[in-house]
Amino acid sequence: MNKSRVEAFSDGVFAIAITLLVLTIAEPSSNYRNLGHELWDRWPGLAAYVVSFVIIGIMWLNHHSIFNYFAHIDRPFVYLNQLLLLTVVFIPYPTGVLGEALRRGEGAKVAAVVYTATMAVNSYCWTALWLYASSRRRLLHADFPEGRRRSATVAFTAGSVVYTLALIIAVINAYACLAFHALMAVYYAVDPLSRRASMS
Amino acid sequence: MNKSRVEAFSDGVFAIAITLLVLTIAEPSSNYRNLGHELWDRWPGLAAYVVSFVIIGIMWLNHHSIFNYFAHIDRPFVYLNQLLLLTVVFIPYPTGVLGEALRRGEGAKVAAVVYTATMAVNSYCWTALWLYASSRRRLLHADFPEGRRRSATVAFTAGSVVYTLALIIAVINAYACLAFHALMAVYYAVDPLSRRASMS
Amino acid sequence: MNKSRVEAFSDGVFAIAITLLVLTIAEPSSNYRNLGHELWDRWPGLAAYVVSFVIIGIMWLNHHSIFNYFAHIDRPFVYLNQLLLLTVVFIPYPTGVLGEALRRGEGAKVAAVVYTATMAVNSYCWTALWLYASSRRRLLHADFPEGRRRSATVAFTAGSVVYTLALIIAVINAYACLAFHALMAVYYAVDPLSRRASMS
Amino acid sequence: MNKSRVEAFSDGVFAIAITLLVLTIAEPSSNYRNLGHELWDRWPGLAAYVVSFVIIGIMWLNHHSIFNYFAHIDRPFVYLNQLLLLTVVFIPYPTGVLGEALRRGEGAKVAAVVYTATMAVNSYCWTALWLYASSRRRLLHADFPEGRRRSATVAFTAGSVVYTLALIIAVINAYACLAFHALMAVYYAVDPLSRRASMS
Repeated sequence: MNKSRVEAFSDGVFAIAITLLVLTIAEPSSNYRNLGHELWDRWPGLAAYVVSFVIIGIMWLNHHSIFNYFAHIDRPFVYLNQLLLLTVVFIPYPTGVLGEALRRGEGAKVAAVVYTATMAVNSYCWTALWLYASSRRRLLHADFPEGRRRSATVAFTAGSVVYTLALIIAVINAYACLAFHALMAVYYAVDPLSRRASMS
Repeated sequence: MNKSRVEAFSDGVFAIAITLLVLTIAEPSSNYRNLGHELWDRWPGLAAYVVSFVIIGIMWLNHHSIFNYFAHIDRPFVYLNQLLLLTVVFIPYPTGVLGEALRRGEGAKVAAVVYTATMAVNSYCWTALWLYASSRRRLLHADFPEGRRRSATVAFTAGSVVYTLALIIAVINAYACLAFHALMAVYYAVDPLSRRASMS
Repeated sequence: MNKSRVEAFSDGVFAIAITLLVLTIAEPSSNYRNLGHELWDRWPGLAAYVVSFVIIGIMWLNHHSIFNYFAHIDRPFVYLNQLLLLTVVFIPYPTGVLGEALRRGEGAKVAAVVYTATMAVNSYCWTALWLYASSRRRLLHADFPEGRRRSATVAFTAGSVVYTLALIIAVINAYACLAFHALMAVYYAVDPLSRRASMS
Repeated sequence: MNKSRVEAFSDGVFAIAITLLVLTIAEPSSNYRNLGHELWDRWPGLAAYVVSFVIIGIMWLNHHSIFNYFAHIDRPFVYLNQLLLLTVVFIPYPTGVLGEALRRGEGAKVAAVVYTATMAVNSYCWTALWLYASSRRRLLHADFPEGRRRSATVAFTAGSVVYTLALIIAVINAYACLAFHALMAVYYAVDPLSRRASMS
């Protein structure tokens, strides 16, 4: 199992999924006379696009980081990675639905739940990937510090719990839910753990 | 003929085809008031997306595996590979049609036949690629075991026969047909032959 | 100017353009009761998809071949290459229009002219790329045979002339035009010149 | 932080964004009897496609060039690069809107403002990327000439100013605005500074 080819394939999937996001912003209706109003009206679609773009971008960086921790990979790991990619590729769908629901002011909570559920399932895949690879240090480099292994396990598990609890936010308010996802992306971007990881 | 550039091109095509699958899940109609019901209604599209994603993911892995068997490649092999990619790239189309037909409860058997026929033609391309490359050990590495060559030939041929027979399942029941394709993907994922191959 | 990065970018564009072709096959209308008839009706779209797929596939191979002839590349060459890619990326558009026009039995000749004109402009780009790179042996490897340079110049120029004349076929019959493009692709696939080139 | 993997990811995003542009050219309406007129009518969409293709193509070249200036990269740089890619990926959206608005002869100025604003924001990202990387020579190669650093800073800042002022052209005339963007692309293509850069 060639690690670099799996990385290259994953990079390709991340790059395509992040680019397809632009197709989720609904086009103006046929009312081009009021194009300014039509486009302004679509700002939730643009906001959802930006949030999902940032999320996928951070995920790509973290994918990159954790692959560096592994001395080798095996077939079950590749299957878990494909499962993870399945959830990444799916992101444009709930992104489009959320943007459109916010614009219409209808179905926004349902859309926020679907969006958050997608991110929750995605976080379970990350956790599963990490637990498989790190338990009994299965795939880790010999010099990967034991303390960092433990803190990463805590961080991944906590992420899964937080995204699951976020379903409550989605039920309460869709805009707050979108803001939550934006904040989580910022958190993952500035997180000292992941930062240190990707620096090495 | 540069083997690694053909591999990179194939990887790119696999990565894009697998990502385009998300576009096959039909968007909610304009009825956003009942968005929950609208989306729930679309689960066959989601199921078809997952099955096709897993199938293309496994194909990518197996493509990777068998390329490792070859010492070099030639132009006819590249043409057969392009033919194979033509069928891979086509998969999103019957995936979308099958998901939509199941949702509407109309035309599901026709859609299942088209989906299965696509997979059957795809399996013929795999068999042709293998037979061309392995007959008289044309492109195989000198140390590739003769016994494994024979068992792979049997496995590829059997795959073509099974997918052709699966057209009968498609005519009988579209859901059973989708389940069959999911099972086949699992089979190819755990198949000892391919597993051993990709481990080496 | 890094030759391999330009090649990788071009490969990516070829891979994406060839995969986007599947989006050109028109989806069934809402009449899923007669899905079999609906899909059967769409065979011209499928035929146009196959022809364009083969054409882009062959182009990718030939792009690969001629890049091997060059010792280095310069900025004007990269601009000509981008121009060539502009025409490649455009191919899905006339492919979709031609398939739909043939299905409707309306506007087929216009669609065939647009499709052929796209291929003609594409062939001018190939010829321009070759003439720029090969005149006074500007970018050619020192050991590239002079005789082969001349024959390639004749072949590229002839291709441009043939595609221009093919506009006449397009005006007469759209099906004949599609068949012509399929034949041209086969010709470029078996052409001894390009075969020899890509073997080396 | 692996520079070459960030470059490869960026290349992938550029390649996909440039290829998705073809989806922005509106398909003919159902009036295939007058297909010639229908398609001719869509020339602004084709023009916008060509301009945006050239712009993204030049950006890709310049991205390539400036990455060569850097001895290493760090995490803030990668975030700025992701921000830049966010604006590149967005380009197909205003391209499609501008082409359609010009075709309809409605909302063209609004569409031109949105298109120009996208390019302006994109130029701010370029400037921010450059200022971050070059101030106090943070990421520059030790032998990168100080004079060239200063002239590049002037050029990037001037670009941001020019694109901001171009909003005035957009408000006056949408066709003039599209022509302006085409000219800017040509300018960046022939600019001695960037040419010299990419030659090295």
